[in-house]
Amino acid sequence: MANIKRIGILTGGGDCPGLNAVIRAVVITAYRQYGVEIFGIRDGFGGLIENNVEKLELKDVSGILPRGGTILGTSNRDNPFQYLVKKEKGNCEYHDASAQVIQTVKDNKLDVVITVGGDGTQSIAHRLYEEYGIPVVGIPKTIDNDIDGTDITFGFDTALGIATASIDKLHSTAESHHRVMVCEVMGRYAGWIALEAGLAGGGDVILIPEIPFKMEKIMDKITARANQGKRFSLVVVAEGAKEEGGDLVVAREVTDPHDPIRLGGISQYVGNKIEDLTGIETRFTILGHVQRGGSPSAFDRILATRFGYHAMEAVMQEKFGCLVGLRGKEIKTTPIKEAIAVPRRVKPDSDLVNTAKAVGTSFGI
Amino acid sequence: MANIKRIGILTGGGDCPGLNAVIRAVVITAYRQYGVEIFGIRDGFGGLIENNVEKLELKDVSGILPRGGTILGTSNRDNPFQYLVKKEKGNCEYHDASAQVIQTVKDNKLDVVITVGGDGTQSIAHRLYEEYGIPVVGIPKTIDNDIDGTDITFGFDTALGIATASIDKLHSTAESHHRVMVCEVMGRYAGWIALEAGLAGGGDVILIPEIPFKMEKIMDKITARANQGKRFSLVVVAEGAKEEGGDLVVAREVTDPHDPIRLGGISQYVGNKIEDLTGIETRFTILGHVQRGGSPSAFDRILATRFGYHAMEAVMQEKFGCLVGLRGKEIKTTPIKEAIAVPRRVKPDSDLVNTAKAVGTSFGI
Amino acid sequence: MANIKRIGILTGGGDCPGLNAVIRAVVITAYRQYGVEIFGIRDGFGGLIENNVEKLELKDVSGILPRGGTILGTSNRDNPFQYLVKKEKGNCEYHDASAQVIQTVKDNKLDVVITVGGDGTQSIAHRLYEEYGIPVVGIPKTIDNDIDGTDITFGFDTALGIATASIDKLHSTAESHHRVMVCEVMGRYAGWIALEAGLAGGGDVILIPEIPFKMEKIMDKITARANQGKRFSLVVVAEGAKEEGGDLVVAREVTDPHDPIRLGGISQYVGNKIEDLTGIETRFTILGHVQRGGSPSAFDRILATRFGYHAMEAVMQEKFGCLVGLRGKEIKTTPIKEAIAVPRRVKPDSDLVNTAKAVGTSFGI
Amino acid sequence: MANIKRIGILTGGGDCPGLNAVIRAVVITAYRQYGVEIFGIRDGFGGLIENNVEKLELKDVSGILPRGGTILGTSNRDNPFQYLVKKEKGNCEYHDASAQVIQTVKDNKLDVVITVGGDGTQSIAHRLYEEYGIPVVGIPKTIDNDIDGTDITFGFDTALGIATASIDKLHSTAESHHRVMVCEVMGRYAGWIALEAGLAGGGDVILIPEIPFKMEKIMDKITARANQGKRFSLVVVAEGAKEEGGDLVVAREVTDPHDPIRLGGISQYVGNKIEDLTGIETRFTILGHVQRGGSPSAFDRILATRFGYHAMEAVMQEKFGCLVGLRGKEIKTTPIKEAIAVPRRVKPDSDLVNTAKAVGTSFGI
Repeated sequence: MANIKRIGILTGGGDCPGLNAVIRAVVITAYRQYGVEIFGIRDGFGGLIENNVEKLELKDVSGILPRGGTILGTSNRDNPFQYLVKKEKGNCEYHDASAQVIQTVKDNKLDVVITVGGDGTQSIAHRLYEEYGIPVVGIPKTIDNDIDGTDITFGFDTALGIATASIDKLHSTAESHHRVMVCEVMGRYAGWIALEAGLAGGGDVILIPEIPFKMEKIMDKITARANQGKRFSLVVVAEGAKEEGGDLVVAREVTDPHDPIRLGGISQYVGNKIEDLTGIETRFTILGHVQRGGSPSAFDRILATRFGYHAMEAVMQEKFGCLVGLRGKEIKTTPIKEAIAVPRRVKPDSDLVNTAKAVGTSFGI
Repeated sequence: MANIKRIGILTGGGDCPGLNAVIRAVVITAYRQYGVEIFGIRDGFGGLIENNVEKLELKDVSGILPRGGTILGTSNRDNPFQYLVKKEKGNCEYHDASAQVIQTVKDNKLDVVITVGGDGTQSIAHRLYEEYGIPVVGIPKTIDNDIDGTDITFGFDTALGIATASIDKLHSTAESHHRVMVCEVMGRYAGWIALEAGLAGGGDVILIPEIPFKMEKIMDKITARANQGKRFSLVVVAEGAKEEGGDLVVAREVTDPHDPIRLGGISQYVGNKIEDLTGIETRFTILGHVQRGGSPSAFDRILATRFGYHAMEAVMQEKFGCLVGLRGKEIKTTPIKEAIAVPRRVKPDSDLVNTAKAVGTSFGI
Repeated sequence: MANIKRIGILTGGGDCPGLNAVIRAVVITAYRQYGVEIFGIRDGFGGLIENNVEKLELKDVSGILPRGGTILGTSNRDNPFQYLVKKEKGNCEYHDASAQVIQTVKDNKLDVVITVGGDGTQSIAHRLYEEYGIPVVGIPKTIDNDIDGTDITFGFDTALGIATASIDKLHSTAESHHRVMVCEVMGRYAGWIALEAGLAGGGDVILIPEIPFKMEKIMDKITARANQGKRFSLVVVAEGAKEEGGDLVVAREVTDPHDPIRLGGISQYVGNKIEDLTGIETRFTILGHVQRGGSPSAFDRILATRFGYHAMEAVMQEKFGCLVGLRGKEIKTTPIKEAIAVPRRVKPDSDLVNTAKAVGTSFGI
Repeated sequence: MANIKRIGILTGGGDCPGLNAVIRAVVITAYRQYGVEIFGIRDGFGGLIENNVEKLELKDVSGILPRGGTILGTSNRDNPFQYLVKKEKGNCEYHDASAQVIQTVKDNKLDVVITVGGDGTQSIAHRLYEEYGIPVVGIPKTIDNDIDGTDITFGFDTALGIATASIDKLHSTAESHHRVMVCEVMGRYAGWIALEAGLAGGGDVILIPEIPFKMEKIMDKITARANQGKRFSLVVVAEGAKEEGGDLVVAREVTDPHDPIRLGGISQYVGNKIEDLTGIETRFTILGHVQRGGSPSAFDRILATRFGYHAMEAVMQEKFGCLVGLRGKEIKTTPIKEAIAVPRRVKPDSDLVNTAKAVGTSFGI
């Protein structure tokens, strides 16, 4: 414990409500409980490569608890093992920047680096720890809630709240216009947001990557509702939902943004099919980036604060290569290796899915 | 005054927060102040054509004040003078259904019809009044705030609030990721929402239909910010914004929904250009239908209630062919004819535009 | 299973966001999964005594998911074993109405009664089950989160969100005016809301019933902040917090509402002391009933829906005398007897308390 | 115009959402449009007396647009003409600090001082201008909306939104419990918030200072509702409402905070009377300080930005002794003298009051 004096912290991957609460908890715990110093690494691994590191003081974290985003900046592109050095149209060059990372750690005398991030970030962290001996402690962060090693991550509850509020808003339009409204939410590989927002918003159909859907089953549900005199329906679809036997349609961010055919993604595809097959006016909405912004919910602020505090505990106890996570009501550590082995996805026979079915939701199967 | 006994009310066009507040105010005023009866016409002019009319009682409007949508249903397709009788792919037939409208008015012994709606609705109302002698009183409703005859319409403030909250959310992502975020809001012919939400959300660039933009001027602004160390920018764009000399790109709803090239609309167009020209990561978000849903703001509930009350006053004073509207602090009536003559658009030299410029916003000119 | 045909449901005690979601889930599951009938009992046990029972159909629960309150009405006064028959100033008469309860159950041929409520409601339910043989299944509901048998109850997350948003608002006033702001939240016997909202809102001092405070320790914290140049402080206090060695000050609802001395409760007491002892301007705010109203959060809607679905499962499996509850990620049943034995209170050495301390919060000890 | 080089700005009186938007607009306009310098005066007139003045740069106002409170700090106690020099229990001393104000203006070479505040602040500003020749330009600010010289002030719309959302929340409790809920909102001398929030929230009774109420008339309304089967009522009361012939009950802040008899104020008084006279359970809630905190609404941000921009215009045009204000759709200046002559109060025969009556609201008369 006496060996730990200087601790770096970085936030990697997409931004997420609660990152600032994590940073604040780490900084306050460090100074108040342990008398050690915290250094902020800017823009994810980019700052570790480019030695963009600054000391964080108590005053730097004053007032940041309720704020979205991350005061450290983030990046979902910078990978030390494949670092973009030149970007030109149709001609990008990458190199291995791990030596620069090691140099930054050395130059700043960092005894450990706290890496706040999802799958991608933790995989890099793990490799830096295993292959290059850099002591790391991970804090899981993924708006999609698809990382293992924790029951839930911060940011998810906020995103869920925003998605649910949006579905509530679409509800009045659907009902007034007798339309089918298709609402696309985040979730490329895991359907947590679609499942929970669909359940909370009273979605008639929920489509998630884990349960490939059949178009005809969606029609059955909408037609059954029409037959009961319910002239509108709400379809909540994860961006990574896919038709049984079909291709993954989606993923605006990973595909070429200039390819218009993919733009509307799965919600456009499903919406158009519904309108064609039922003749009912159908509209789609893609919530997009608004889901990951803004002030974190109380739940996320608390969870993030607990993660920050316990990450500092893990640091001081030299539990390197580990990730903090919520297990029931307690915060525990798990080897990063285990946490990133398999993404946490929705089980098609889980209680949440069964509950949704019990209240009449169709999963398109 | 003694002649008015039975009053119909319909809501036409896109739904809008505050419609239920209007209906409630009309119904309560009718029963409590005048002892006359109100009849709800379902689904806009469709109900007037198909004689889908039901008496509204006081209990029907209990508790609807804070609810989005319209308990009467609406339609933005049904036009009595061009009524769709058969819909088949590539083969639609329309006929003149004005005789049916007259019959419905007669069958239900309606002494007057209150028409709540925008340009389209009021144009039809005006024609029914002028050409067919049906007494009407109009209440202006347009989320885009582009109808004349009133300083402002209900629904706009709610949409503005939703758009501003969304821009606030995008702000944290823009700042954390050092990105340009392009946020597309409603406004096909008038840029009120983009202008006001851009002003309220601190947009660096605001693009509206009334001020055709030049791509290079947008670049200048973003580059100037980058040179000052501000590595992110927010661009707020009305769906109907257009490039100087360019075509109107947009309008997801009016074009063929199956035409993918038009899907991302102006925000995709602008976003891609910015990323190409500056090399700064750029993302776009289309707020879409969430802007018109949900519980109306206090301002909209009050304005809608005032409109409903004053529409009943106009009805009882037999001010037919008129529209109620806010003029300064008072509610006044205007002939519908005048109100629909020219849409209310943003004046490029107005104080709001000048204020936005003074605090550093670029309009791309 | 074949024996269960007619099921009653009542909501008792203070209202709570999520009650309608419970009712909806029970009704939909009953009709869709089991083909059994649901009967709504009005106004808690009052309806069971007075035979105020009506059949609930699917259409009755349409659209109620996002709404606060309870469509069944509730009462936190009607106790079958001590039923108020005459109310006069200084002269109230009570009698045992259990025979009426039995008669209502018999008259309506109810095979089981689902009782949604907290400690008080479940104690009565348990007695009806144990002593009078009325089959019951309980669903825990308490805004204060103080019932055992479940990790968490619905309504709490919504109350927490409202309290946190209010604390955020008080923050700007505290900072601008260099004041101490004391914010009183619900929690007569358990400090969950104060603890979690205090943690989420960055409270400098949190006072809860489970940890009796010393005034001097609160002063120490506020003075220490002032010495660091922080001229404002936020104190979050549960209504049931008490001074070490002092009396319970609080409880506006249980004491005589006409007794002004008790009106401001603990927040006034603490606020005045702080102003007197430090000379810093101090203001207090009592959030009161707004904490239990409004649309339930996504979390609460989901939990309430799960409770409703699983209560129906328990009913059909004839698990009478039991209460459904969240245990980790699963819904399980517990004998009501066990659940009501001891209230769930904050443990002074729990991780949440330790986390709050780690980020600098004082508990006044 | 060439004479104005250095401009001071202070915010006085109670804090108000939008103050930061004003400061931001003043600073950006000053540097970008005119190349002049802005100096922030801390904590209202206190900073002018104590020479607590610091230069404001563009970076100081970056990101403050959506934030509540004021980065300059405020005070509603410091009066240059009656400045508290010694505070002891029962023994306070005041002196005239106007010479210190003049010295601060001189020391900082301030060519003009922008005073953002309500009646109190502007009265002082006016006296400094008239009697001491200090050039001032005023910006009206009052959460209560009771200052003349402008149709509306920023902060009011935000407070209205918070009050309305709270009334919505109380609605579900009132309905579920069949209670009368009394909600006390701000407004000591003017009832704007109570009137508009009451109208927006569907208040059954609205009590404002401008219309003294009779208890029996309130009873009539509540009884009439009960007779129609509406077993709950919402009463919205301004803190300064008073009974006809009665004393002003209220004003928690102005009276001795230790005087318990006055604590519950008018809402307690009215609530207790209702419960005593009708036997219906009644609860009261005092919204208090949460009404003036938090992020400003879009409307308030825009109005505040316009005020800031136009105040700078007035400064550069040397319109000293004037106040900017909204007149219809335009911003105009008025002599401060005129603006503070008479407070803007609700007219008992105004259209808003008539509208509220038309939809069934009682004013207790």
